[in-house]
Amino acid sequence: MKIGMIGLGRMGMSMARRFLQGGHEVVALNRSAEKTEQLAEEGAVPVYSFKELVHSLEQPRTVWVMLPAGKPTDAAITRLGELLAPGDTVIDGGNTYYKDDIRRSQELENKDIRYLDAGVAGGARGLEHGYCLMVGGPIDQFKRIEEIFRALAPQDGYMHCGEAGAGHFTKMVHNGIEYGMMQAYAEGFALLEDSPYAETIEFADLGAVWNRGGVIRSWILELAVDAFCKNRRLADTDGYVDDSGEGRWTVQQAVDTGTPIPVLALALFERFSSRRQDDFRNRMLAALRSEFGGHTDESGQ
Amino acid sequence: MKIGMIGLGRMGMSMARRFLQGGHEVVALNRSAEKTEQLAEEGAVPVYSFKELVHSLEQPRTVWVMLPAGKPTDAAITRLGELLAPGDTVIDGGNTYYKDDIRRSQELENKDIRYLDAGVAGGARGLEHGYCLMVGGPIDQFKRIEEIFRALAPQDGYMHCGEAGAGHFTKMVHNGIEYGMMQAYAEGFALLEDSPYAETIEFADLGAVWNRGGVIRSWILELAVDAFCKNRRLADTDGYVDDSGEGRWTVQQAVDTGTPIPVLALALFERFSSRRQDDFRNRMLAALRSEFGGHTDESGQ
Repeated sequence: MKIGMIGLGRMGMSMARRFLQGGHEVVALNRSAEKTEQLAEEGAVPVYSFKELVHSLEQPRTVWVMLPAGKPTDAAITRLGELLAPGDTVIDGGNTYYKDDIRRSQELENKDIRYLDAGVAGGARGLEHGYCLMVGGPIDQFKRIEEIFRALAPQDGYMHCGEAGAGHFTKMVHNGIEYGMMQAYAEGFALLEDSPYAETIEFADLGAVWNRGGVIRSWILELAVDAFCKNRRLADTDGYVDDSGEGRWTVQQAVDTGTPIPVLALALFERFSSRRQDDFRNRMLAALRSEFGGHTDESGQ
Repeated sequence: MKIGMIGLGRMGMSMARRFLQGGHEVVALNRSAEKTEQLAEEGAVPVYSFKELVHSLEQPRTVWVMLPAGKPTDAAITRLGELLAPGDTVIDGGNTYYKDDIRRSQELENKDIRYLDAGVAGGARGLEHGYCLMVGGPIDQFKRIEEIFRALAPQDGYMHCGEAGAGHFTKMVHNGIEYGMMQAYAEGFALLEDSPYAETIEFADLGAVWNRGGVIRSWILELAVDAFCKNRRLADTDGYVDDSGEGRWTVQQAVDTGTPIPVLALALFERFSSRRQDDFRNRMLAALRSEFGGHTDESGQ
């Protein structure tokens, strides 16, 4: 089928290519024309404005928005709401907060425009392997354009999760779990690094062995092996760990529903800690120990 | 080669079968004769005492001990220390604490008997897929009997990790990571269970989709899918979570080396919490809230 694609960043570009490879027609719009033209050489129809995009699609139109979450996505969807016709469908494939999906879905529904939210996992290697897709919104629209999800995902790698917001909610939980898993591996390898066996264990080899029959085998562990192969003890890596928002939403959600997720919350807080090694918290602890009576040297316990 | 196998429990029996399938000779000893005879029908040489086992092997002997960690293993290895000759090798494949390996290794070394500690991961499905093996002890002995590890493990699924204790240390860390990963999945799915989308998300389907392209794909997630297939919302499962010791050693080790492993420690403590839902801690919190002034009803905040 024919799909409009807004946003040709790292993810959007790869997804547009998977659409084209799947035999679909892509009408492509990007903030900078360079990437649009690059994709046009690969078979996409290049457009340079929202109006042109909408006029290049036939009703019922299908437009995939793949922009940074928040203002850029909100602005694009507001503009589409002005230009699209009843029966058209907008899909937001960005990392949107699910409550924004619910709001937008209602706003567009007032104009009889359908809104689907697609949580996309798989990251940088999705072009090759396919993107794991979690979709929320009206199931009849999901079914109408299901072949698009099939083109993007690996075999059986997509699903409809429920009403508006369900896709991004599920993706948020996916990322929350990811934080916890990453932290578990990081702490385990740190224990090895601090152990009497640190010198005789090659972490890349150990990760590879664990991945061949260990209970903890996983894709994240494969990525850890790749990292250790490049950089034996990660000496070249700065231990400043960023977060992209979904871990925070996960914890906010847990507070909303009163769900105890101590490990996922702690994994997020550990990322915060990684950015402030000499932070107020630690200075206050040191100051209090000093007040107790003379624990002023660094080796004091 | 010819190997003595002591202990035909669930793991020992499967491992003995993999030895036999790999073309090795197995001399089998078990506390109850029934399993020994069962394995004899599959080609093993049945023996009924430590003496008989030792006499049925030629020097340098190789004996694999697969017994519950602690007293049973200690008793068996002490007895082997009395019966074996210089140059013989004992392998402990149980879940031994690595400091016990270091002690035993020194005791046996005094008699010129070699000791290897093998951490074994892979659990119940190891017979089919092979056991992931992490081995500690003298590397020359590891190489002498390497074909045994090759028979037990999947392709490239074993490694020598260092001196005495390195195998079980590494296995301990593997299990510590496992606790953290399991907790991360459990908390993530709990958030879905408590969410507005709980009714429309089939957890088995979601786990399967995540395993086809999601960042959090793993074997543990495959096991979760199996569990959800059997029991949609785990209503038939009691939420009492046991632990087998290695998570505790992981935390003790972190205390020894001053390594911050908050998520692994918390995952262990959450298992403790699961066994005491109305415990002193919570009663004390409730009592203190009541002292603050009248928060006596269950819905008080």
